[in-house]
Amino acid sequence: MTITRYKAIIAYDGTNFHGFQRQPNVRSVQEELEKTLTKLNSNLPVIVQGSGRTDAHVHALGQVIHFDLNEQREIEKLRFALDTQSTEDIAIHSIEIVANDWHARYQPHQKTYLFRLDNNKSRNPFIRTYTSHFPYPLDISKMAFAIKQLEGTHDFTGFTASGTSVENKIRTIFHTEIFRKNNEIHFIFHGNGFLYKQVRNMVGTLIKIGNGKMPVNQIEHILETKNRSLAGPTAHPEGLYLKEVRYI
Amino acid sequence: MTITRYKAIIAYDGTNFHGFQRQPNVRSVQEELEKTLTKLNSNLPVIVQGSGRTDAHVHALGQVIHFDLNEQREIEKLRFALDTQSTEDIAIHSIEIVANDWHARYQPHQKTYLFRLDNNKSRNPFIRTYTSHFPYPLDISKMAFAIKQLEGTHDFTGFTASGTSVENKIRTIFHTEIFRKNNEIHFIFHGNGFLYKQVRNMVGTLIKIGNGKMPVNQIEHILETKNRSLAGPTAHPEGLYLKEVRYI
Repeated sequence: MTITRYKAIIAYDGTNFHGFQRQPNVRSVQEELEKTLTKLNSNLPVIVQGSGRTDAHVHALGQVIHFDLNEQREIEKLRFALDTQSTEDIAIHSIEIVANDWHARYQPHQKTYLFRLDNNKSRNPFIRTYTSHFPYPLDISKMAFAIKQLEGTHDFTGFTASGTSVENKIRTIFHTEIFRKNNEIHFIFHGNGFLYKQVRNMVGTLIKIGNGKMPVNQIEHILETKNRSLAGPTAHPEGLYLKEVRYI
Repeated sequence: MTITRYKAIIAYDGTNFHGFQRQPNVRSVQEELEKTLTKLNSNLPVIVQGSGRTDAHVHALGQVIHFDLNEQREIEKLRFALDTQSTEDIAIHSIEIVANDWHARYQPHQKTYLFRLDNNKSRNPFIRTYTSHFPYPLDISKMAFAIKQLEGTHDFTGFTASGTSVENKIRTIFHTEIFRKNNEIHFIFHGNGFLYKQVRNMVGTLIKIGNGKMPVNQIEHILETKNRSLAGPTAHPEGLYLKEVRYI
């Protein structure tokens, strides 16, 4: 029996999940995948490792996981089986075989997040779980100026949830984008890692700046002071997507 | 106290509804609207009438309803109150005052339905409740030929659910369309009325024709013989949208 390690790129609609990570008594992406993989592994338990967690209601377009099976499988057959036998809110985009010491979380990687903000005046029932709704005016040029202040290597303490256990809060954001798409505003953040609730706190602050409730230099000020209370409220999870995990 | 009748154009995501019509022990669009309107009417009961029913999981982009309130309201304020106080899967697009004998169902009208078929090979978790998934090849030119045979005035007995209580099964379809949009196929039907499950049975038959499992003249044959067993299976409700109700 040879153990083979598989890397998979998956997508999920986070609406009905309490996040990626397995937790007692609630539905998680990890547990759903482990249930299906265990069935495909002659009922021998399979553990799934993700590149990182996503919170309740947060979506993924390109989350990366790894898992081990007891034999080498034909890749496309395995992908098809896992895709079709998984619950309807998870899709398996691709699978490949990796070295037995490859690790979705510990292998160095960069992540890209997308945040979709619905800026229509009225709520749209069809995108209510796929966007965050903000019906008030937003000055996109102010937000475009402010988002650039997030780029670079900074201590992001002011943008993480209080009580976060991670010691090192220095991260690098390589690239940001903001643009209108129909009546939505899309925010893109590409970096070498993000702290707990960091993306949602950055978006919440950018919304306040766009709405004129905070000055355009507020982000610089938060980065300097590391003061969480200067940042905007945490934006809703429904608008957030883990878009891509890129291994380097 | 003057009774005023209001006509409203509404949209709803049918995913979590057991259809438009009020029924015991299940969630319906009608009951949700009546609950909110009753609150807005000093807790005096309000009855909502729709242009017709939609089935469980079927969506509406432009359903029309009417209801009476005990006084004349400022239209935009009423729309805003009903929109924001309604459950998140219902939106109120517009409201106008109509004559006290105007009736959403009995006033002569035409209806347009849209059906969205996802023709991608893999399931997409983000549109699973907004499209019907068909991963096999479809010849759109065959379907474009066949859909035109539905236009005109016909006895649609062969396309309705068996046991339908309506006596007169003659309806007119004024216009049909079929086109690809990304990897979806969209079907449009505009007619003076549709029988129970008629649109879904027409789509189910068109899919069989597109997939080469039925000849391109099958629709003509079903219309002539009125034989339900010659039609394809009823297409899934998730793909169906009541797009517009036009009063004439």
